[in-house]
Amino acid sequence: MGRITVRRPVVRVSEHGTTRRPDSLAVEEPLEIRIGGTSLSVTMRTPGHDFDLVHGFLLTESLVDSREDVAELQYCGGDAGDGNTYNVLDVVFAAGVRPVIDRHRNFLTTSACGVCGKAALDDVFTRTRHSPADDPVEVTTEALAAMPTTLRAAQRAFDATGGLHAAGLFRPDGTMLAVREDVGRHNAVDKVLGWAVREGRTPLRETVLIVSGRASFELVQKSVMAGVPVLGAVSAPSSLAVDLAERSGTTLVGFLRGHSMNIYAGEKRVTAP
Amino acid sequence: MGRITVRRPVVRVSEHGTTRRPDSLAVEEPLEIRIGGTSLSVTMRTPGHDFDLVHGFLLTESLVDSREDVAELQYCGGDAGDGNTYNVLDVVFAAGVRPVIDRHRNFLTTSACGVCGKAALDDVFTRTRHSPADDPVEVTTEALAAMPTTLRAAQRAFDATGGLHAAGLFRPDGTMLAVREDVGRHNAVDKVLGWAVREGRTPLRETVLIVSGRASFELVQKSVMAGVPVLGAVSAPSSLAVDLAERSGTTLVGFLRGHSMNIYAGEKRVTAP
Repeated sequence: MGRITVRRPVVRVSEHGTTRRPDSLAVEEPLEIRIGGTSLSVTMRTPGHDFDLVHGFLLTESLVDSREDVAELQYCGGDAGDGNTYNVLDVVFAAGVRPVIDRHRNFLTTSACGVCGKAALDDVFTRTRHSPADDPVEVTTEALAAMPTTLRAAQRAFDATGGLHAAGLFRPDGTMLAVREDVGRHNAVDKVLGWAVREGRTPLRETVLIVSGRASFELVQKSVMAGVPVLGAVSAPSSLAVDLAERSGTTLVGFLRGHSMNIYAGEKRVTAP
Repeated sequence: MGRITVRRPVVRVSEHGTTRRPDSLAVEEPLEIRIGGTSLSVTMRTPGHDFDLVHGFLLTESLVDSREDVAELQYCGGDAGDGNTYNVLDVVFAAGVRPVIDRHRNFLTTSACGVCGKAALDDVFTRTRHSPADDPVEVTTEALAAMPTTLRAAQRAFDATGGLHAAGLFRPDGTMLAVREDVGRHNAVDKVLGWAVREGRTPLRETVLIVSGRASFELVQKSVMAGVPVLGAVSAPSSLAVDLAERSGTTLVGFLRGHSMNIYAGEKRVTAP
């Protein structure tokens, strides 16, 4: 099985001179996802929580809705295959589950010269099954402000590399439900959302998703696909991330640092303590 | 034409209370790349320097080798098309240029259960035309340490959002040749390498590429494809990034902060001042 970190020799240069020492690096390895034996996607990920990653990927690509939609998930060659790299996972859908597998997103092929942010947003709404718009949950600024600290504390337990992104799911009162890490921030989000799928918790009503970096369109899209009502990011959102948050009724909070934060959309859910 | 930043209303919460004010966000919009009218790829990018982005993408996907391989590059509908979103760029290759366009990287389909880091590395070497291994360039630790500061100073001129990644190309003496920004770090790298393609500077011998974030496998791969001998990152590299740097003869420096840095591969090129 793969490891999350690996030790490598490094030459450290500083004002105090040059030293040789081992350093911990975040492991990056390809994971191939197959559907009934046919390759669907390859992502470069940190090994570990691969079953979560695949469930989250299938959910956020709107290929499955719940854990009951997945009949089997196993490493190619089975658990004891000779020479198995544990980098190929094969999905068998449950009877009756026949999602449309579209390698190219719909919005790519809609019009001659008109691909644009709006088309990308429209595409999300043709695919989402769990709109967070009507979720009445509220979260205090105090609880929100504490979540990145809780996330970092959990992350420090695993990450000695400085190279892993984290995503955490919280209750509005600040209780952390799950945290996952990866070299790819989209993978960290897929892993934590996939944990929720496997736990039978989707759609994720009344939860807060916290990410350790920036909030791009893709991360808001994944959050919407899982029905998460509140997304908080330690760094900046992009323009299209804010557009999607507004249209989907997601509360989007950025620059969540210390006691301060910026609310970009859905401020009605954020209350004073 | 698209803009790099956009102003949006934001609710700012801090210890001093709650205020409403406009905030600058990094723009994120899809860019579709077509080859002779057929869609090849869509990337979410920050508008601006799109021609650079496409040239860099074509280089790092080993579809072109130099600017002479591209006969035409234009926005779908031409420069004055009605309703043009400036988000679709169509490439026409020069006569005789017929690259193999493989939507799935080779290493995806090599063996039954064996996709792994080594296969991903092997794939790079079947595709690269510009190995940096024999580049004799040297760079001092002093010059390297100064490059992120130069990059940030150039970035501050454009970026008021906190949401843009930067990539810069330098001479070994510390002179900055070009800097490009994007919400996607792979796009920032493609843009600055594409600038070099359009300037007729590839393969990029005797240069240093500096990136504002982490060094993943994908970024080292792009660097190798352009023949860059030295890659420096402000944050951590992944295990596979270090593996690829070692195998390709790239010098890889990480945690480039202040006067300190970690050299992960190719230390022979880094010298004392």
